[in-house]
Formats: sequence, structure tokens, C-alpha cells
Amino acid sequence: MPVAIVGATVNDKPNFMAVAWFSKVNNNPPMMMIGIGKEKYTGEGIKENMAFSINIPGKDLVKETDYCGLKSGRTEDKSRLFEVFYGETGTAPMIQECSVNYELKLVETIELPGNNLFIGEIVAAYTDEKSLSGQKPDLPKTEPLILVVSPTPHYYDLGSQIADAFKIGNDLTK
Amino acid sequence: MPVAIVGATVNDKPNFMAVAWFSKVNNNPPMMMIGIGKEKYTGEGIKENMAFSINIPGKDLVKETDYCGLKSGRTEDKSRLFEVFYGETGTAPMIQECSVNYELKLVETIELPGNNLFIGEIVAAYTDEKSLSGQKPDLPKTEPLILVVSPTPHYYDLGSQIADAFKIGNDLTK
Repeated sequence: MPVAIVGATVNDKPNFMAVAWFSKVNNNPPMMMIGIGKEKYTGEGIKENMAFSINIPGKDLVKETDYCGLKSGRTEDKSRLFEVFYGETGTAPMIQECSVNYELKLVETIELPGNNLFIGEIVAAYTDEKSLSGQKPDLPKTEPLILVVSPTPHYYDLGSQIADAFKIGNDLTK
Repeated sequence: MPVAIVGATVNDKPNFMAVAWFSKVNNNPPMMMIGIGKEKYTGEGIKENMAFSINIPGKDLVKETDYCGLKSGRTEDKSRLFEVFYGETGTAPMIQECSVNYELKLVETIELPGNNLFIGEIVAAYTDEKSLSGQKPDLPKTEPLILVVSPTPHYYDLGSQIADAFKIGNDLTK
């Protein structure tokens, strides 16, 4: 899975955690979901402020990303690693060093046995100019991190283009 | 996002669709989520039988995967592309050619404006011997497909190892 860093304000301070359980879940309006352990410090802030961010780190942030997954905001100030900025919600801290940032308002919380799923509506998205191709974010340019946990946990980078999507399958039309 | 092929029995026949909106969402018990359009044929079968599968295709199935995203089961028999097998649910068709298959029982459906999120509990998982390292599935060996939609839609393969996960971040401990 790709890796993101989720931001939230917890006890009036910016906090960040690494997540690999996230996905887009709706197009109109645009919504994303994250799944995090019920005991997580970040979850307290998301519930309190009804806002969070999803930041996509590049290869250059592999240490910082891993650190955000290893340490809890209960004991560590992880915001010291980043230049933090805010958007319209005011309570979804975002990371300047990440090429892509989504700012979300919480719309629904699903309680599973060990995890909370937070579903948010994207209220704003940010990207830096060097990661654009024309008016579109160029994801390969952002050099995303991909987490593989089995057989052993490693971060990978994105490989090469294999084929055109939404097109090559037409070759199999009867 | 990585790409999966979701299987379900619809109107008594096996059907498959490609999805990029899926994630693990709980560890104990193991659960996964998929997000698909409310109008999708596959969703009808998941609701009816309370079961579905998530199959991870390799690079060698890029055409078949794309086809499963382009065509609807309402008009095409996509099961003709694969050797189909079943597990204990009996209604979650799985794809022999995919190195990894998860068989799930539906536990919760979340209705979003345009999409349904189906949350399933994994009742069985299958992998072929050539994709194992010892007793563990070796994900890089399965050569997963990664879908990038921006700036233009392409399938990518997994790149190279960058760093150890859950470890390298310790370098940043104060």
C-alpha cells in the first residue's frame, strides 16, 4: 500500500502519524477514508476537531514517515520534523515538505473491533508547482513511498509504466 | 493505489470487477474494505450473498485486470478470462491465476453519496507456492499492479527497496 502521513490537532498541538490503510472512497463529493487503531492519539484529535489532513510523503521523507509510524504523539512532538501549515479548517495541520496535501472534514466514523475508520470530505487539496504537469498533479514526480510488509517490512518506490489504464483491456473484447 | 479484482456471485454466476479503492481496515479479526459505485453489478451480488473475494493480479494479468474495470458484468461474462475456484463461502468466486486471494464475508455496508463501502471479514486466504518465502506471502514476487491516474492513467509495477520499515525512523529519535 502507499503510505500517507495523517495530521490532526490534538490537545491544541499539531500531531502526525503514518498510515497505510487509507483510500479514496467517493468521487462527488470527493471523500477519503483512513483506518487507525482505536487507541491512537491522533484519533482523539480527529474526533474533537472533526478535521484531519492526508499528506503524501516522497522518498526524501522516508525517515520522517517511518518515525511518524514508530512514535506516539503522547510522548513525542513529531511536528518538530516538518514545516506545518493550515488551510480553511484551521485544525488540520499539513506538511509543507509533502508534495500533495488533502484537507478533510470528518463526515462519518465507523467503529470496527480494533480500529476506527474516519471518512472525510476533501475541502481543499494542495500541491507544489514542481509536482504539476500542466494543471494536474503528476503523481510519479512526487516519488511516493509504498509499504510492503510481507515477507519483511520495507519501503519501495514506484516502478515503471507497464501499460495504459482504461484502454489496454479493450484488446480482450470478444 | 494497488489494483485488485473483486469477485462476487451475481444472478448465480461468477462476476469480477477491478478496484483501486480498497484497504485493510482491521487486524483482529482481519477485515478489508472495498469502495465501489452504487450502480455496480458486483454490488448486487455482494448484498445478495453476503460474500466477496479480493484477488491480487500480477503484471501478467494487466490486460485482464483492465478489462474487468472497463466492462460491466451486466453485458459481459468476465469469468471466461479466468480459472475460477471457490472456498468455504461457496459464493465468493476467486481467480486461480492471481497469486493472492482473500475470501470475505460481508460484515457491514456503508452508504456514501455515490459509493458503497463493503467491509468484509477475511475467512480464508490463498496463495500459490511460488509466491511464498518460507511460510509468508512474498508480495514483491507477486508483481502487483499499481494504478496511477494523474496526470494520465497508467499501470506501474513496484520499484526497488528504499529502506527498512518500522526501523529507519529510529534514526530521528532525539
